[in-house]
Amino acid sequence: MLIKDLGEERLIKYLSKRFTQRHPRLIKAIGDDASVTVQRGGWALLSTTDVLIEGVHFKKGRTPAYLLGKKALAISLSDIAAMGGNPLFYLVSIAVPPDTPVRFLTDVYRGMYERAKKCGAFLAGGNTARLPGRIVIETTVIGEAQKNRVVYRAGAKKGDMIFLTGAAGDSALGLLELKRRDKGALKGPFKKLALRHLDPEPRLEAGAALGAQGLISSMIDVSDGVLLDLKRLCAASGVSAAIDIACLPISKEFKRYEAQRRRSFATLALIGGEDYELLFTARPENEARVMRAASGLKLRITKIGAITGGPRTRVKVFGADGKAVKTKSSGYLHFRPPLRAMT
Amino acid sequence: MLIKDLGEERLIKYLSKRFTQRHPRLIKAIGDDASVTVQRGGWALLSTTDVLIEGVHFKKGRTPAYLLGKKALAISLSDIAAMGGNPLFYLVSIAVPPDTPVRFLTDVYRGMYERAKKCGAFLAGGNTARLPGRIVIETTVIGEAQKNRVVYRAGAKKGDMIFLTGAAGDSALGLLELKRRDKGALKGPFKKLALRHLDPEPRLEAGAALGAQGLISSMIDVSDGVLLDLKRLCAASGVSAAIDIACLPISKEFKRYEAQRRRSFATLALIGGEDYELLFTARPENEARVMRAASGLKLRITKIGAITGGPRTRVKVFGADGKAVKTKSSGYLHFRPPLRAMT
Repeated sequence: MLIKDLGEERLIKYLSKRFTQRHPRLIKAIGDDASVTVQRGGWALLSTTDVLIEGVHFKKGRTPAYLLGKKALAISLSDIAAMGGNPLFYLVSIAVPPDTPVRFLTDVYRGMYERAKKCGAFLAGGNTARLPGRIVIETTVIGEAQKNRVVYRAGAKKGDMIFLTGAAGDSALGLLELKRRDKGALKGPFKKLALRHLDPEPRLEAGAALGAQGLISSMIDVSDGVLLDLKRLCAASGVSAAIDIACLPISKEFKRYEAQRRRSFATLALIGGEDYELLFTARPENEARVMRAASGLKLRITKIGAITGGPRTRVKVFGADGKAVKTKSSGYLHFRPPLRAMT
Repeated sequence: MLIKDLGEERLIKYLSKRFTQRHPRLIKAIGDDASVTVQRGGWALLSTTDVLIEGVHFKKGRTPAYLLGKKALAISLSDIAAMGGNPLFYLVSIAVPPDTPVRFLTDVYRGMYERAKKCGAFLAGGNTARLPGRIVIETTVIGEAQKNRVVYRAGAKKGDMIFLTGAAGDSALGLLELKRRDKGALKGPFKKLALRHLDPEPRLEAGAALGAQGLISSMIDVSDGVLLDLKRLCAASGVSAAIDIACLPISKEFKRYEAQRRRSFATLALIGGEDYELLFTARPENEARVMRAASGLKLRITKIGAITGGPRTRVKVFGADGKAVKTKSSGYLHFRPPLRAMT
């Protein structure tokens, strides 16, 4: 069935029935002028919004609708993780061409629903609109954290160590493979890399745990590449940084891909976007506790460098030979010719 | 300057500098992974999201950017008003073609900023993205209300009176005039009607006052026409309704327009969308207090009908001759061929 056959009212009713749920903090989700939820006294409210645009952020033929929904929510959840918060609820706004199959939309919503369920978040509302020729998915996530436990980009101090969760560059490499083989990449030997691009995992548990323990001084999620997001963190903190390319955590699949293609893709670990790992800083004396937290989370956490002095923000990158590497382009930016072609 | 020349980082910094403000409930707006605001203990949080799409909801040449921003926010504020709430903060997400002048974007933001300032709401975050060929503006508003004072669509009971704020049909008539004369309508004799379409006033004070006084049983804002939105309210409440076309409040400008064009546009008062007036119900014994509240608000409030029994939801419309009028099409709906052509 096509969306234009179903009509807006029935579509919303249908989506609302399938994808809302009971929750002690939810009074009214979809079906009124606004959603109604319960606030928590004295806590900070975190809010973030992201958009995925067909042809800019994703290609329809390359991205299963279910994963598209999961990813749309995941990138906003990652922002909540990067503040040390817990997600509470989300709003979705989808604009689609009228001849889109209803199935596509329900798959998108199902992806978000499943992703949200894993972290206890609930759908609180949204809207649908007609947009000829293109799909636009907008997600807003509201989360919360104890006011004095929110972790900002600002807060890194000279002498802090810089850490990264998971592995760097997998998503960019997965995108390369998706460009070569389209959906075939999801079945090939590098399926895991493709899924790191299409189905990124927001580091919610890590973000909340690191924030709650008061172990870290600043944090950001890596959406546009380690180098660019580290620059942002440094700029917000008014410090500089030095990192070691050789220290960047690389996955087994990444190495296997390099071996098979007989090329180094090391720069992608530095500037490849959309890993949605957490980049954070901590005092050296907290390093052991950070690592203990990591093993409790069953998540790899790697020290990749150190914060150096200000006042002008600079990120120095050292190669395997110990010499500084020139870094010209720094990651993915909208409106500017990107280093990597877009998805 | 064009947006592609400025680049995303500088654009966000520029917008953030100009359009964020200090507020006791705001800890961090733009510039981190998520915004941070302070919750209020025991209150209900209201959230709503809306989208304006070029070519679907507005025509660029017909809509000054400043008014476009004002309207984008106003339609979400109207949803908060319809819950009896007060707006707290808003998030904006704008997707634009790279060759859009920066001026256009700052005018949109300025419109939202000025509109928000009037009701004490603040910008808490958002994002910008590149979208070839079309402008898409997404607004999310978070508001709040005392938990037991939120007014829902559900709640209307048999015997309740039905009320409407302001006047009906002005926005649809303004759109007619805009279609005839484009931006010229903003200078012509029916400027007020055109502005009712381009610059609608969310009834925030009325919504909050009616909600806080506990005077009313249900409420909805009129975005898709009195008839369709009344049907929605009735469906949510499980009741039926009867209204009188002759009772629908018509503005002086509306009448003047009819006189000049020598035609009746009465149906537009019934099915014309985007008035963003409040449609609500109250027990007959509260009518006098509702009217007193109206005079305190300096806002016209008109009784237009009464709630009748269920169980099947029906809205009967009576004409000036006292006979029931057939109503086939009921308002504006996405994905279905609309009665009114779109903006």
